[in-house]
Amino acid sequence: MRINDNFLELEDNYLFSTIAKKVANYQKNNPDKKIIKLGIGDVTRPIVPKVVEAIKKASDEMGTEEGFRGYGPEQGYDFLRNTIVKNDYKDLNIEPDEIFVSDGAKCDCGNIVDIIGNDNKIAITNPVYPVYLDTNIMAGRKGNIIYLPVLEENNFVPELPKEKVDIIYLCFPNNPTGTGITKNDLKKFVDYARENKSIILYDAAYEAYITEENIPHSIYEIEGAKDVAIEFKSFSKTAGFTGLRCAYVVVPKNVFGYTKEGEKISLNKLWNRRTTTKFNGVSYIIQRAAEAVYSEEGKKQVKNNIDYYLENASIIKEGLTKLGFTVYGGINSPYLWLKTPNNMKSWDFFDLLLEKANVVGTPGIGFGDCGEYFLRLTAFGTKENSIEAIERIKNANII
Amino acid sequence: MRINDNFLELEDNYLFSTIAKKVANYQKNNPDKKIIKLGIGDVTRPIVPKVVEAIKKASDEMGTEEGFRGYGPEQGYDFLRNTIVKNDYKDLNIEPDEIFVSDGAKCDCGNIVDIIGNDNKIAITNPVYPVYLDTNIMAGRKGNIIYLPVLEENNFVPELPKEKVDIIYLCFPNNPTGTGITKNDLKKFVDYARENKSIILYDAAYEAYITEENIPHSIYEIEGAKDVAIEFKSFSKTAGFTGLRCAYVVVPKNVFGYTKEGEKISLNKLWNRRTTTKFNGVSYIIQRAAEAVYSEEGKKQVKNNIDYYLENASIIKEGLTKLGFTVYGGINSPYLWLKTPNNMKSWDFFDLLLEKANVVGTPGIGFGDCGEYFLRLTAFGTKENSIEAIERIKNANII
Repeated sequence: MRINDNFLELEDNYLFSTIAKKVANYQKNNPDKKIIKLGIGDVTRPIVPKVVEAIKKASDEMGTEEGFRGYGPEQGYDFLRNTIVKNDYKDLNIEPDEIFVSDGAKCDCGNIVDIIGNDNKIAITNPVYPVYLDTNIMAGRKGNIIYLPVLEENNFVPELPKEKVDIIYLCFPNNPTGTGITKNDLKKFVDYARENKSIILYDAAYEAYITEENIPHSIYEIEGAKDVAIEFKSFSKTAGFTGLRCAYVVVPKNVFGYTKEGEKISLNKLWNRRTTTKFNGVSYIIQRAAEAVYSEEGKKQVKNNIDYYLENASIIKEGLTKLGFTVYGGINSPYLWLKTPNNMKSWDFFDLLLEKANVVGTPGIGFGDCGEYFLRLTAFGTKENSIEAIERIKNANII
Repeated sequence: MRINDNFLELEDNYLFSTIAKKVANYQKNNPDKKIIKLGIGDVTRPIVPKVVEAIKKASDEMGTEEGFRGYGPEQGYDFLRNTIVKNDYKDLNIEPDEIFVSDGAKCDCGNIVDIIGNDNKIAITNPVYPVYLDTNIMAGRKGNIIYLPVLEENNFVPELPKEKVDIIYLCFPNNPTGTGITKNDLKKFVDYARENKSIILYDAAYEAYITEENIPHSIYEIEGAKDVAIEFKSFSKTAGFTGLRCAYVVVPKNVFGYTKEGEKISLNKLWNRRTTTKFNGVSYIIQRAAEAVYSEEGKKQVKNNIDYYLENASIIKEGLTKLGFTVYGGINSPYLWLKTPNNMKSWDFFDLLLEKANVVGTPGIGFGDCGEYFLRLTAFGTKENSIEAIERIKNANII
């Protein structure tokens, strides 16, 4: 039996395992030190009461003959698809059958490559969330990928590709840089895609953290995007579902791809075929949990958590800025993109912060070579730790 | 943007939608008739109390600061992987890191094609669960598929492929025929795979329904299988999880594929890479639910449901046999494979049963042309309906 040789083209990603090893090693040699971890992008606040209540109610239902539900629709229950449309796409004319409920944006971003032909030219940013890159390499498209740098120099907004590309991955608010994109800048990409019959794969997983008015919450706020964009959304960072698992992808019926013969094919239809063949829907209980996020009480409770993280972001951003650091992100995002002082390399600065302040970040180089000289910090810790981290960095006299 | 043209090679599967239309149409014209549905393979008994309790406990945990869990290991929590090994693979020397917890056997069977090279020759049975076929067509392997007929003549055990194949899909107890495979017969496939450096993808989703001693519950009961077989298992039919979503796949570290250059690569390593890149693990709450299936009480409660379905199977099998029908399956499976009387075609017999007895089955032809002249019935209804279905078929004087 022959394996898929494309897997051999993947680089092993040791980013988080290397961090874990370095931290463990430091802790072993310094057992009395309390390390503050601002590295991994995972939430920490508990699931809100309204969602817990919904899970328990749904599980009671499942335990009764009348309430039991077996296989649900692979695309998600109508109650959730309708609720998503009504809340997240009010006035944007998205239809419920353009929403596909899934168990994670990572899965959606990865699985979408199934419906894509092998000879497309693909643009991803640099630095980037590694899933976009790795899943395309697995599918045999390593040679088809071009990189759009996301740098201080371009204000972390990539320039339009210089050569014609067929697919563009964009993630805004961005992971890892924590920066947003304005409607005007995003419009340029939508126009590019319309002109070139390209499509945009738009990852809006961090949309709930947007605080500024000119930053779009959905790509469909941009005129013409409904003809060229697929949008990924998740309950993970919005409502703390990283351990519950629920997300969705929007595939408008008017987004088309082309066959070898040039025939137009609706990607909604293709994705539906992929979904019904290779997926069996999200747990009924988890779909009820996601629905509860949109209840009046649920919205308030979830917003409290987001505000909590955003306050952390602002504590870290302001604190570090006062100390003389240059910090991007953190306004429309739980991520901060900290420029290393004195042109230190990412890993050197990581080591320094760990040793002198016992604070852990993620080296920017881990997201691509344009991430060199940066460190990603996250606001997903506690307020107390966010404050203490700044205090420690101050006392360490690093800058 | 170019689509994956292989999708155009798929045949639209209208099996269950055609059934639904025919039933709706009949009901519309005969509103007074009560139709008994023995068509779709979905469970109907509620989730057992021990599992409901586990879900509620886990959701309470998630609502507290101490109990909250974010991202879990993509491969599944150790508590579940260890429990699976201890219970389902006692004395079979499967290691916890050979177990990958997932959200469904359909997903696993579909996603496994990611790690497979495109030029493999693939054998599937006929009739067959359509997912094996469709997912390979999507990946561009339509021309590489050969069929192993599963017929009355061979006692529903496929013969070994006459040409060399690299991958063999087997599902036992079988969907749709409801028949099992003996250890001796399965050994022939394991030996074939060892001789030909092929691998077996073994779908054991219906294992919990096995009642006979010489029918293996796992392919790893067969000597040598751990070097050549990947096994798919699910909580769907075992514990009624079709709406909760949990399954697992076993990829032993000693199963190898080969690169173009002939280098041996562990499929466990490849699958792990695929899993960590494109999946984010099953909901913590659902993994706790699956764990509860293995508790003392959980086992008893779940067994009660399986016994209930098996009693239905035996009611249908004996009842129809007494009426003069030929019925296969139903002993180690919730499925019965009913031979149509007088060489009637599947769909003609479907129509006859619907009209004369108001009983719905699934035409065998829907699973492949070797399913012609058969109808699949399921034991997943109520006992009362199973009894009444037989009574009605008797009174309809069909045979």
